[in-house]
Amino acid sequence: MRNSRRGEVDPFIVMDVMEAARQAEASGRHIIHMEVGQPGTAAPAGARRALAEAMEQDALGYTVALGIPELRKRIAQLYGDWYNADLDPGRVIVTPGSSGAFLLAFTALFEAGDRVAIGAPGYPSYRQILKALSLQPVDLQTSNANLLQPVPADFAELDVQGLMVASPANPTGTMLDTPAMQALIDAAASKNAAFISDEIYHGVEYEAKAVTALELTDDAYVINSFSKYFSMTGWRVGWMVVPDAHVRLIERLAQNMFICAPHASQVAALAAMDCHEELQANMDVYRANRKLMAEGLPKAGFDRFAPPDGAFYFYVDVSKYTDDSRAFAREILDEVGVAVTPGLDFDPIRGAGTLRFSYARATADIIDGLGRLERFMKARGHV
Amino acid sequence: MRNSRRGEVDPFIVMDVMEAARQAEASGRHIIHMEVGQPGTAAPAGARRALAEAMEQDALGYTVALGIPELRKRIAQLYGDWYNADLDPGRVIVTPGSSGAFLLAFTALFEAGDRVAIGAPGYPSYRQILKALSLQPVDLQTSNANLLQPVPADFAELDVQGLMVASPANPTGTMLDTPAMQALIDAAASKNAAFISDEIYHGVEYEAKAVTALELTDDAYVINSFSKYFSMTGWRVGWMVVPDAHVRLIERLAQNMFICAPHASQVAALAAMDCHEELQANMDVYRANRKLMAEGLPKAGFDRFAPPDGAFYFYVDVSKYTDDSRAFAREILDEVGVAVTPGLDFDPIRGAGTLRFSYARATADIIDGLGRLERFMKARGHV
Repeated sequence: MRNSRRGEVDPFIVMDVMEAARQAEASGRHIIHMEVGQPGTAAPAGARRALAEAMEQDALGYTVALGIPELRKRIAQLYGDWYNADLDPGRVIVTPGSSGAFLLAFTALFEAGDRVAIGAPGYPSYRQILKALSLQPVDLQTSNANLLQPVPADFAELDVQGLMVASPANPTGTMLDTPAMQALIDAAASKNAAFISDEIYHGVEYEAKAVTALELTDDAYVINSFSKYFSMTGWRVGWMVVPDAHVRLIERLAQNMFICAPHASQVAALAAMDCHEELQANMDVYRANRKLMAEGLPKAGFDRFAPPDGAFYFYVDVSKYTDDSRAFAREILDEVGVAVTPGLDFDPIRGAGTLRFSYARATADIIDGLGRLERFMKARGHV
Repeated sequence: MRNSRRGEVDPFIVMDVMEAARQAEASGRHIIHMEVGQPGTAAPAGARRALAEAMEQDALGYTVALGIPELRKRIAQLYGDWYNADLDPGRVIVTPGSSGAFLLAFTALFEAGDRVAIGAPGYPSYRQILKALSLQPVDLQTSNANLLQPVPADFAELDVQGLMVASPANPTGTMLDTPAMQALIDAAASKNAAFISDEIYHGVEYEAKAVTALELTDDAYVINSFSKYFSMTGWRVGWMVVPDAHVRLIERLAQNMFICAPHASQVAALAAMDCHEELQANMDVYRANRKLMAEGLPKAGFDRFAPPDGAFYFYVDVSKYTDDSRAFAREILDEVGVAVTPGLDFDPIRGAGTLRFSYARATADIIDGLGRLERFMKARGHV
């Protein structure tokens, strides 16, 4: 049967690592998972309890396309709690994960052929979803001086119809502070380019609170999710805040493209938002892990990274050790049983010289993994 | 902020009816819901129990993109049970509802600008999703003689890159028998057009078993869902069977566009597949309702419809009473409190003279509703 060119998106290189790790485990080896991009924890107990109760009392059929009104209201309240911002719940759209939000945003904002700027390194699916929707991703090669975040000069001369940023970013964990975010918003506006802010790691931050684009402008699409801070990856529920004038547009698209986000997940998400204690306990683990990583990675020779302000990753320049991060990751897995992500998924060019280390799992694993990494690098004579 | 033309899809006209019904209920009226396209029943008890247990034991993080292997295997087994067909589980892709399957299929198969033939009347979201993905829906005006299903002659002269069919169809409930399905498959193949078969109402059939395209060819995309027969609309889980050579293509798209179908819903769906007794009890209700409708609608003057073989709808030609189905539906709601769907959502042209009546809810409601419809039509002097 025929197939389209736009549908031929790139594979995830990390999948090869994950498959190799799975095979190693199947053969009896103990593998430390520093490749995963998700919490090891379940949805908060209160969230699961709320769903267990709802399953007894409600048919859990379709919800309205924009999401359960109580959930939209509770999300709006989060903007008050976290940013002291006053947000109209009518602008909040509950989506099937941030993935669903990307599909809605890109479809609502761009025609086939439009060009959308994204930072490299960045979340690989931006590039692939854009391509699948007949859009052209335009990689901005960010600099270490800018913490691997884009700045206006990176796209000032480019013909682009949109700019997508992420703060805290995957894979770097770096954030845009208020002036940096404002500069990007202004630069996009001056080109009449749509501004999209991916804020799915908000809440998972360590030194300063992350800045939401909504503190600075109403003329942006802001995307968030229950996957990371709320520890609900597999539930596929997130949200998007859009300008008032776009709500009806998105509603119609969402009705047709998704009908609604999973009802059960919406029920669980609403309850998760009040599970502060359990969520902060998760944060305590990340905080401890991050400290261990910040000390342990340099000891293992992995000392070139931008300071991660949020998320649960270190993105390390390993170009002094290799020009083939894929082979290097494979060697680490084979020799000491630590799965890590080669940078090529995030940056098709410079990623050949980078690795992403995740610290989302249990602290005991982090300690074990750091020890293994140090052994690997000592055996190579790098430290 | 800018927005795209492709994102400006049509509103659902039935939403106006639903909003009017909601307002009527808020003001204290008792409304019979014959506009809804979903079962009133919850997911089977066994499905809910399985999820409640899984929530205690599993973090329910991301699954692999193609879905939980046990679920893919169990779905393949269904093709043995229902059609005596031998299906490789490797060709089964678990999707976020049939909605997710449409997005994957249209993206994988078609370039921007391609033309895809669909029957009119048909499920309105086909048209809107195609448009949102920069594709051109080509409505085929089906005939009563063909039970409002497309036949090869309807598109023989057209330049189309795909053909999408539905059996049992929404809104008509009519089915394609083996020769009709085979003729469409052959006609599509002769034009090198991709063949997509929407089979989401399979299992909800009354006289004969529905035919799956997979009995006739491996060179098709077949889309199904847990929403209807398995009574799991709000859970957003469905599946798609694709040619062997397309599995990797779809896997990469699904990884990027959705990551995975909701994990909790996959767990519930797997258990739902063994809840025969409860599902057959639902079918008994539909069967009784269908019989009541087949007798009661003609008594109320609604006597022009193709015999519905499956699903839970009657699609009635009311052109002898009105040329404005939207106003007519509104009058039925206002005067006797029965919400019905104007045909315009399904067929932008001829739908001005049709109504869809759903019988998915409780039998007592059907009896009540039919009585009200008869009163309405008597008051008008139509019967």
